Amino acid sequence: MPEKELVFGHKNPDTDAVSAAIAYSYLQNKLGYNTEAVALGEPNLETKFVYDHFDVKFPRVISAIDGEVKKVMLVDHNERQQSVSDIDTVEVTHVVDHHRIANFETDLPLYYRAEPLGCVSTIVWKMYNESEVEIPEKIAAIMASSIISDTLLLKSPTTTDEDRDALKDLSKIAGIDYETYGLEMLKAGTNLDSKSTQELIDMDAKSFDMNGTSVRVAQVNTVDVEDTLKREADFVKDIKAENADKGYNLFVLLITNILTSDTTGVVIGDDDAISKFETALNTKVEDNKAALPGVVSRKKQVVPPLNEQF
Amino acid sequence: MPEKELVFGHKNPDTDAVSAAIAYSYLQNKLGYNTEAVALGEPNLETKFVYDHFDVKFPRVISAIDGEVKKVMLVDHNERQQSVSDIDTVEVTHVVDHHRIANFETDLPLYYRAEPLGCVSTIVWKMYNESEVEIPEKIAAIMASSIISDTLLLKSPTTTDEDRDALKDLSKIAGIDYETYGLEMLKAGTNLDSKSTQELIDMDAKSFDMNGTSVRVAQVNTVDVEDTLKREADFVKDIKAENADKGYNLFVLLITNILTSDTTGVVIGDDDAISKFETALNTKVEDNKAALPGVVSRKKQVVPPLNEQF
Repeated sequence: MPEKELVFGHKNPDTDAVSAAIAYSYLQNKLGYNTEAVALGEPNLETKFVYDHFDVKFPRVISAIDGEVKKVMLVDHNERQQSVSDIDTVEVTHVVDHHRIANFETDLPLYYRAEPLGCVSTIVWKMYNESEVEIPEKIAAIMASSIISDTLLLKSPTTTDEDRDALKDLSKIAGIDYETYGLEMLKAGTNLDSKSTQELIDMDAKSFDMNGTSVRVAQVNTVDVEDTLKREADFVKDIKAENADKGYNLFVLLITNILTSDTTGVVIGDDDAISKFETALNTKVEDNKAALPGVVSRKKQVVPPLNEQF
Repeated sequence: MPEKELVFGHKNPDTDAVSAAIAYSYLQNKLGYNTEAVALGEPNLETKFVYDHFDVKFPRVISAIDGEVKKVMLVDHNERQQSVSDIDTVEVTHVVDHHRIANFETDLPLYYRAEPLGCVSTIVWKMYNESEVEIPEKIAAIMASSIISDTLLLKSPTTTDEDRDALKDLSKIAGIDYETYGLEMLKAGTNLDSKSTQELIDMDAKSFDMNGTSVRVAQVNTVDVEDTLKREADFVKDIKAENADKGYNLFVLLITNILTSDTTGVVIGDDDAISKFETALNTKVEDNKAALPGVVSRKKQVVPPLNEQF
């Protein structure tokens, strides 16, 4: 039996981070590795809906490696600050990702597969096909859900033809009508009322070091932005506390309407950082809010122009 | 026509750096890109032999991008200091590599394919197969030559089963007997007579700081160690001058017989450092020379035990 390795996606896991880990771990085990998929956090609303819907067991949740293994495989992230807290104590042997590469360095050669597609599960789907390994029905279902989630049902500008092909193929294997199921699933993820504002700004948030400026970008999906903004005062209070506590220079909360594909940003931070945000996104921040029409993708439409500006 | 991109390997190019660039550029053009393979330096003796032998045109040599293109693809390297001088002025859209990842960062998602195999041309061979693109005879010939070069005819400890499979398949396409051709090619790279001893101890030398001790390890390949050692007195004189001049505590010149996969070391330095070398490599230094049977890889067989000892 080869030495055991853990496979996991980023902190604050979304549907793709967990499902790509499960799918990749299953594939690697078929190819002779000895891996276990784990998650770096509890499921969000959408992911919980998906795993309940298909009766798939959510993986074991860990917050640190704590000496359990010496080697790990990463999916859906590579930047150190998005990974397990003690990532520097282990060797990364494999990465499958669809993000930029940054804050990532190894001592040894490794397997690294990145493609600029809408979803990591699409890359893993390609790897199943290349290895000619059959995809089990339940794994196909959570991979299809990942693509629906990451591409907002193929509407996000990150969507590629390969994501479309993968979703069609995986839906067929899983026996789902992805249009109907997809809307139901996305709506399940927007049931924001059950969450505190603190939970909402944490849920799907990522940190970036942009040339010395600490930037945090969170995103929540909704079907009614106005309804979500009824709690604006609480969002502002929580974000200010978060900036003071964690030292963020800029915090952007993207409130995205998945039906219209528009976003309203709640933007709080240093004056200089806010002014750079305005230039980067070609918008104005007024009363802590900025209109971002047509913006749905943090990765493609928010982080690159911010990076450019800082 | 898509925007033009350049494809290139590392500075001081060897056979794989140039040939993998040509092979990957051809494949990408078949897949709809618009690329040109270039080299970041003139061919070395071995590479010149290969390109003359198969009548393949050596690519255009550049030392900087100089605004010629906005996007590039890297093969056989990723670390900034090994790349074109003005790499920071362009976007890296694709990387195919078999080294560790370090000093590499992008603003945008990209294609990155790394595998810990003996040779990048082996990875490119896999990509041709995955895309079902036919490999032209001459490209197969220079890819096979790359594998022979990087793995010393499949004898280096970096060699994997995939390198073996690739070399067999590529040799068949190119119509070469890789055992016979491979020896001829490796010998062509060992034509040491045209070089001064000073050039030989410089040609492929790397410095290491080992816990405060300054260690220099140079390597030359030969088919006749005795013949090479006819100039022993000159090697010793030049190395002593080099140690005095550059402050090395230990200088190891590995004279490697590519036919027998054995090495003779010319070892000159402080008594204490020499004694540590003897322990690390389990050998005796007599008259400045040490037998190192079975040693061919500086990276895998010499540097790690020295690091351990110092």
